[in-house]
Amino acid sequence: MIDSSLARPLEKALDRLLPKRGVPARLQAAMRYTLFNAGKRIRPALLLQVCKDLGGNLKNALPSACAIEYIHTYSLIHDDLPAMDDDDFRRGKPSSHKKFDEATAILAGDALLTAAFEAVARTPDKSLIGPMTLALAEAAGAAGMVGGQQIDLSPKANVHEIHEKKTAALFKASTHLGALAARSPKAGNLARYGLHLGLAFQAVDDILDAHEKGRRNVACIYGLKRAQVLAAREVAAAKAAVRFMGVNGERLRQIADFVVSRKH
Amino acid sequence: MIDSSLARPLEKALDRLLPKRGVPARLQAAMRYTLFNAGKRIRPALLLQVCKDLGGNLKNALPSACAIEYIHTYSLIHDDLPAMDDDDFRRGKPSSHKKFDEATAILAGDALLTAAFEAVARTPDKSLIGPMTLALAEAAGAAGMVGGQQIDLSPKANVHEIHEKKTAALFKASTHLGALAARSPKAGNLARYGLHLGLAFQAVDDILDAHEKGRRNVACIYGLKRAQVLAAREVAAAKAAVRFMGVNGERLRQIADFVVSRKH
Repeated sequence: MIDSSLARPLEKALDRLLPKRGVPARLQAAMRYTLFNAGKRIRPALLLQVCKDLGGNLKNALPSACAIEYIHTYSLIHDDLPAMDDDDFRRGKPSSHKKFDEATAILAGDALLTAAFEAVARTPDKSLIGPMTLALAEAAGAAGMVGGQQIDLSPKANVHEIHEKKTAALFKASTHLGALAARSPKAGNLARYGLHLGLAFQAVDDILDAHEKGRRNVACIYGLKRAQVLAAREVAAAKAAVRFMGVNGERLRQIADFVVSRKH
Repeated sequence: MIDSSLARPLEKALDRLLPKRGVPARLQAAMRYTLFNAGKRIRPALLLQVCKDLGGNLKNALPSACAIEYIHTYSLIHDDLPAMDDDDFRRGKPSSHKKFDEATAILAGDALLTAAFEAVARTPDKSLIGPMTLALAEAAGAAGMVGGQQIDLSPKANVHEIHEKKTAALFKASTHLGALAARSPKAGNLARYGLHLGLAFQAVDDILDAHEKGRRNVACIYGLKRAQVLAAREVAAAKAAVRFMGVNGERLRQIADFVVSRKH
């Protein structure tokens, strides 16, 4: 889906920007265990792709790409905790608190979240650090992803609000940060692209998981047909937001099409 | 101890820089519950005092001061969790997971940590955001405070390493950030001042709590007398680090003396 030449520099940066000196061995092991556990790297790859297709310098995008993946990883570790979703497995392997222990899992999440902002602060173009930090914190924090998880805990939660905050906020931040890295004057368009892409991604996730999920699943709530219409509408909105890019937006439009057509 | 004219602007900024729009009510209540629970504000007050005594602009120090307090608060919430120190009370009131629930306490901590970096990114002098974020992340992250808590969980932990990472790292960051805000060329000295002050503070804490703590307490390990010598040595080192400030360093030296003489 995403330019394969971006994968290697991303994996190297994910390792390089992780704090190492003075980090207790067990904490470091826990941070790396979930971070290097066959994640698909969708969000950081999207961030780099946006920067590349807008003609930006990837060096200014790599720290943010790592930050987004550190934050996604910390959210998985904390969401799996017994007090939250209580999941013993993640990608076919024991989840962090099962492999280590609950305290270590909480701390590994805290450390990855902190490492994310440290990574952004290492962006070569220093003038980008402020706007990038704000975009990331807004998406990940109390009004974004963390808020989404909080709403998800409530029995009378609204599924659209959960999807927007828990999933789409981080997608939106990814494409927004990619555009900021490229110093694009159209960063708002790219943020919209990511928001709609994230909503489409989550709707398709729900369709694929409709047999196992419940009241948080648009396919269970509205039925498969209406969920598909919803996903298609979001993809159309995502593609419209990058129309201004002309042929340079071809890859991003393909990614949007891929998101609805995927089978797993 | 610290200039009382700094207290009001700090309390106002602590409220102002907290995310509000789009934050779920329960999450917001949990964030505010521990943040506005009669904390002594030692770290942020110290940060502002350093900036002031170095002749800096307090506007560039207030966001970092809030960030330090948000991080201190999140660490209290997470440390109190059942999987960590399992404390049901904090400053005489139910701790966060008792007042709310475990999931909300974890999320309130995550949200406060994220809000800390958002606050730093709102520093008026944009050129300070990068160095400030690095100083804060290093002190709070895997090699600092979070690492200290991880070491604290291990039965064969070294008490000095715990004190340096769990307590002194955040004191060091406070005085370092205050000096950065003032654009002082002597920021390294102020970082040293904070480090030694933090170690003295923890030694005195241990002396005052010697009746209830155990293997993590220097007064229990070495005896009261040696712990007092240790605290006095750290205070002397702290004062030496700000000798270059001359009369302008008088307040910071008084604070160091106060730290060892305090009775609670």
